[in-house]
Amino acid sequence: MIPLPTLKWMDGFLRLLDQTELPSKEVYFDCRDVDTLAEAIRTLVVRGAPAIGISAAFGAVIAAITSDPGDGFVTAFHSKLDVLEGTRPTAVNLFHSLEIQRDVFRKNPKKPEAVRNLLESARCMMRDDLEASRRMGQFGADLLESDSTVLTHCNAGGLATAGLGTALAVIYEAWNRGLLNKVYADETRPLLQGARLTAWELSRSGIPVDVLPDSAAASLLRMGKVDAVIVGSDRIAANGDIANKIGTYSLALAASSQGIPFYVVAPLSTFDISTDCGSDIEIEQRGRDELSSTGNRQLIPDKAGVWNPAFDITPASLITAIICEKGVLFTPDTEGMLSITGRTQKDK
Amino acid sequence: MIPLPTLKWMDGFLRLLDQTELPSKEVYFDCRDVDTLAEAIRTLVVRGAPAIGISAAFGAVIAAITSDPGDGFVTAFHSKLDVLEGTRPTAVNLFHSLEIQRDVFRKNPKKPEAVRNLLESARCMMRDDLEASRRMGQFGADLLESDSTVLTHCNAGGLATAGLGTALAVIYEAWNRGLLNKVYADETRPLLQGARLTAWELSRSGIPVDVLPDSAAASLLRMGKVDAVIVGSDRIAANGDIANKIGTYSLALAASSQGIPFYVVAPLSTFDISTDCGSDIEIEQRGRDELSSTGNRQLIPDKAGVWNPAFDITPASLITAIICEKGVLFTPDTEGMLSITGRTQKDK
Repeated sequence: MIPLPTLKWMDGFLRLLDQTELPSKEVYFDCRDVDTLAEAIRTLVVRGAPAIGISAAFGAVIAAITSDPGDGFVTAFHSKLDVLEGTRPTAVNLFHSLEIQRDVFRKNPKKPEAVRNLLESARCMMRDDLEASRRMGQFGADLLESDSTVLTHCNAGGLATAGLGTALAVIYEAWNRGLLNKVYADETRPLLQGARLTAWELSRSGIPVDVLPDSAAASLLRMGKVDAVIVGSDRIAANGDIANKIGTYSLALAASSQGIPFYVVAPLSTFDISTDCGSDIEIEQRGRDELSSTGNRQLIPDKAGVWNPAFDITPASLITAIICEKGVLFTPDTEGMLSITGRTQKDK
Repeated sequence: MIPLPTLKWMDGFLRLLDQTELPSKEVYFDCRDVDTLAEAIRTLVVRGAPAIGISAAFGAVIAAITSDPGDGFVTAFHSKLDVLEGTRPTAVNLFHSLEIQRDVFRKNPKKPEAVRNLLESARCMMRDDLEASRRMGQFGADLLESDSTVLTHCNAGGLATAGLGTALAVIYEAWNRGLLNKVYADETRPLLQGARLTAWELSRSGIPVDVLPDSAAASLLRMGKVDAVIVGSDRIAANGDIANKIGTYSLALAASSQGIPFYVVAPLSTFDISTDCGSDIEIEQRGRDELSSTGNRQLIPDKAGVWNPAFDITPASLITAIICEKGVLFTPDTEGMLSITGRTQKDK
């Protein structure tokens, strides 16, 4: 697998690979202030729950760098983190990451120590994410048999994390072990992360991939062409319900109806034990423009409305297993979730 | 409902509303020879099973008009019909309609009588389709309760038939009776017939409609926002399995999992008793270009493949009822299909 330049700390600013321009152009987007980074997160220049979390961690470094070291330093820092926190509501990694950075800051809220400590913390999160990705890849690949064909949705790859991804970490590892026949990638309307990003990163690593319309996936599963469905997640509730890119629930239903394993791969930073179940997760609604036009061409008449949720909830009952860096949780439920996260009911 | 100029015989040629240009432009496409009409059917200038069937019937008139009345008249006529027959493999109306026209032609294979007879036959099919549409609308609306919200897929409306459509005939009639709250229309990738066509024809008739990504439909159903799913069909096999636009099967699975009625609306010209079951129906594969780019923008990297079936099969077991011009067939099976079509096992 060829390493991806998804995000890189450049000694004072954060350089992001602009994912809105892929696959036709590889251009970079530099964030030297928090507002620019917030806009990059909102417009999906950077996306994927772990990558958003790590970007926000570096955003906290930028917040400290760009805040005046005088009396208002603490207030300025926290209000900049509030801006980052308001960018996207569903992926929990963003909130986890900012919470960690606020704690780091509180311990020594002075320049230049705060900058140094925040940077060390962000780099640590990045290293952890890389290691988590590697371990998830191994645990996941252990579940696949030889000559496997897998289906994935959206992009849960190197472009969504600091490492090799979550769902795609499993796919890369299976490929390295010689277990993988081919990958089907849902195109993932409206922003086509499957077509634009997953197909791009897999094919540049030499892994055979076919893109299909999201609505064709159920039919593909029914034809017996897929051995496992593997997806990422943006938040996992205490009972094992997951939020992920819109269309995941539909896939899980189709997999369940055909008895095909449905695996969710996500690091512990995506687990949200404080949220009881899927229906408590806020689902981000995206704008009309994502559906209503392409280039100059109008696709929806002015008088028609639009319903464009970014995510959906897949109930734990449809999930064969959740794979994280600690191992594999089969038939996820609250008990298993608490056990794998090393938490108790009191922590909820 | 405002009548639609989907297709019109213009005293010597067929004028089609070019559906590839909707909703932004209303332009017309005139077919004065069979090759032009065949290209119009292939490229979806005209689409929808009944509209394809009627266009082909008028295509037979054009075939007779444009064939030299000398010795080769009969051969020329039939070879032109072969061209039309080769355009799209899934919708059975095309084959039914051409079979009827070949029979009409055989009874009097001479100019100018053949032209006159074929034209009368095509006009008769058009009138029958209009009347079938009206009746399906009534039978279907009888199944809806007041304040109903319905979800539909692709376009099974006035743009897909000579009349008010199949699934949308039910929606128009429910709206006229004051039973309808609103309509959700799947955008229907890759060619977006739901966004471009269904939303256009419903909103121009004042019916509230929201467009959603296909992959969001299951989530919408799970949220309890839809009272019935209503779709058309391109071919119905003897056992009640149906072929319809890719994504229909996924919708049927989601509706079934939530106990939401799933209605298929199609005229008898779409029934194909000679085909035992869905797996015997040929599914058209469409080109890579429908998924790989939009305007000048590349969406899929060159090294990735594409799987782009135009239709899928929904098994009869997931269908609450099939509605045709003869009435409503609940829990469709071979016995019910033979009964409603007035056929016997021998006809199969």
